[in-house]
Amino acid sequence: MKLNLKLTLVSLVAGALGLASTVATAQDPLPSWNDGPAKQAILEFVKATTTQGGPQFVPPEARMATFDQDGTLWVEHPMYTQVTYCFERMPALIKQKPGLKNKEPFKTVLSGNREAIAKLSTNQLVEILAATLTGMSVDDFKAEAKRWIAEAKDPRWKRSYTELTYQPMQELLRYLRANGYKTYIVTGGGQDFVRTHAEQTYGIPPEQVVGTAGGTKFGYDRSGKPFLTKEPKLLLNNNNAGKPEGIYFMIGRRPVAAFGNSTSDKQMLEYTRAGGGARLAMIVLHDDAEREYAYGPAEGLPDTKVGTFTQALYDEAKKNGWIVISMKNDWEKIFAFEP
Amino acid sequence: MKLNLKLTLVSLVAGALGLASTVATAQDPLPSWNDGPAKQAILEFVKATTTQGGPQFVPPEARMATFDQDGTLWVEHPMYTQVTYCFERMPALIKQKPGLKNKEPFKTVLSGNREAIAKLSTNQLVEILAATLTGMSVDDFKAEAKRWIAEAKDPRWKRSYTELTYQPMQELLRYLRANGYKTYIVTGGGQDFVRTHAEQTYGIPPEQVVGTAGGTKFGYDRSGKPFLTKEPKLLLNNNNAGKPEGIYFMIGRRPVAAFGNSTSDKQMLEYTRAGGGARLAMIVLHDDAEREYAYGPAEGLPDTKVGTFTQALYDEAKKNGWIVISMKNDWEKIFAFEP
Repeated sequence: MKLNLKLTLVSLVAGALGLASTVATAQDPLPSWNDGPAKQAILEFVKATTTQGGPQFVPPEARMATFDQDGTLWVEHPMYTQVTYCFERMPALIKQKPGLKNKEPFKTVLSGNREAIAKLSTNQLVEILAATLTGMSVDDFKAEAKRWIAEAKDPRWKRSYTELTYQPMQELLRYLRANGYKTYIVTGGGQDFVRTHAEQTYGIPPEQVVGTAGGTKFGYDRSGKPFLTKEPKLLLNNNNAGKPEGIYFMIGRRPVAAFGNSTSDKQMLEYTRAGGGARLAMIVLHDDAEREYAYGPAEGLPDTKVGTFTQALYDEAKKNGWIVISMKNDWEKIFAFEP
Repeated sequence: MKLNLKLTLVSLVAGALGLASTVATAQDPLPSWNDGPAKQAILEFVKATTTQGGPQFVPPEARMATFDQDGTLWVEHPMYTQVTYCFERMPALIKQKPGLKNKEPFKTVLSGNREAIAKLSTNQLVEILAATLTGMSVDDFKAEAKRWIAEAKDPRWKRSYTELTYQPMQELLRYLRANGYKTYIVTGGGQDFVRTHAEQTYGIPPEQVVGTAGGTKFGYDRSGKPFLTKEPKLLLNNNNAGKPEGIYFMIGRRPVAAFGNSTSDKQMLEYTRAGGGARLAMIVLHDDAEREYAYGPAEGLPDTKVGTFTQALYDEAKKNGWIVISMKNDWEKIFAFEP
């Protein structure tokens, strides 16, 4: 491993300078990963796809890597951060539309009764998302979401949600980019919401975020200045089959590497693997209740509604050569803020 | 002008080497442009937005430039190339679906009667596009379109359609990219169709092509291999207001520079100009019947259905500081193959 790594770094540095170079420091690009099959698979994949003249070489323009966000790049339990945002925006929404105060499902959310909130139906959740995420200008939405994400804290760790990003995945993003990969987020979450923090949190610019997206409507304000309003019209449901469809629509190339953690990433991983040559498909198993959370129901882990990873998906992964990342065993460190 | 240009080149070269450099050749980056207000506007815009510390400096990650394709980057007369493709695909389509042979509007297209074809309604054209552009796998479509574009010839110049790209715009694309701009195509044409030739023709990769787009459907073939089928379901009508809406959806940033040639580019240019700081909005006027085509109806040019540039748009451009590019006066050379 050490030797391969050293060679990669030498060629990287040499490439950056446009010169042959004999100086290189063999630093581990993935220090938060324990030695094991997951880390090894990453290092071997990068070496194989970047070795000029090698049988699995991928030209730089085709080096596309797609990452799910919730549960893959940052914590998604006990509830997706964007849903928390929508719940916490409720008082501001009621101020603008007081009529909603005594209407369901808004009444239940405002009650703060967690048990009742957990029982809301999918249709009711969609109603809440539509009310809190549409109807304003895209600039107003962006400003609000950015303000919230800068201030809100996760109750367990008492830290910003953006600090709850997984350090091993941050290293992986950087390592892939250093090797010429273009990194994309392909999330079931809202494209607009994720774009407000993706650049700062992951180094991923807005144009490389593919997510569930509604339409917008172009219009002019009173002074004649054009602006866009967020409409409650779904253009892309970027979950399950929607992920490869969204990738084709937004990127137009099949990824060479893809990373997920739940059944809604299944089709993206299948689509990625179905391309020829070297392909890397990895899936995070949340099996560390102590340092993060434990849920499946794969491998006898607790069954929860958020980030479901079924046994069938686990079996498909094992059968097809996807790499299951065990948080417990493969990650030496989960968060940057750990001592 | 010369001095500014020289400084830009020096800083460019220095940046590429990561070194201070004292050697530079003051080559004209836009040799096919005549000296005049259009060329000057481009040079001044690039200088203003790339001068570090200057009042109009734009950071590299925000340097987004969007280009319409038909009539802006390549010839669109007498008919959009993609529509020609659909017409020429008709015999192959009839082979697969013989039932269409005696049905309108397919019968008219097959007749080759140009007068009758020119009279087809918009709905009939949409029916033809849907029949020839959907129902196959995305890979089959790509292979067919690529084969056609490699073989088909424009009847006037007897050259490939991709050779009918405007040399001054090619220079502009390269000049912007050399100055850190990310160049996008934002076309009313089909996203999939344009993606098949954009990289080779314009140096623009698939993920930087935004166009009118239909949905796809994820499924599995008999061996269990996943694939995507092109569906007759419109996701993005990338014309008029659809252009800024498509830009927001696909790119998530407002362009700093935008280039078009017809009324369907109006909203994209307005949206671009409405951002703060230096903005470049340019619109190509086809006023050279001898070397290319002449059409408006702006400025008394002939009124045609393809690539309409109205007098109202011309007046809006003049009033708001958009630059009208006169093909006749601003372009010394139109095609690379000219002697």
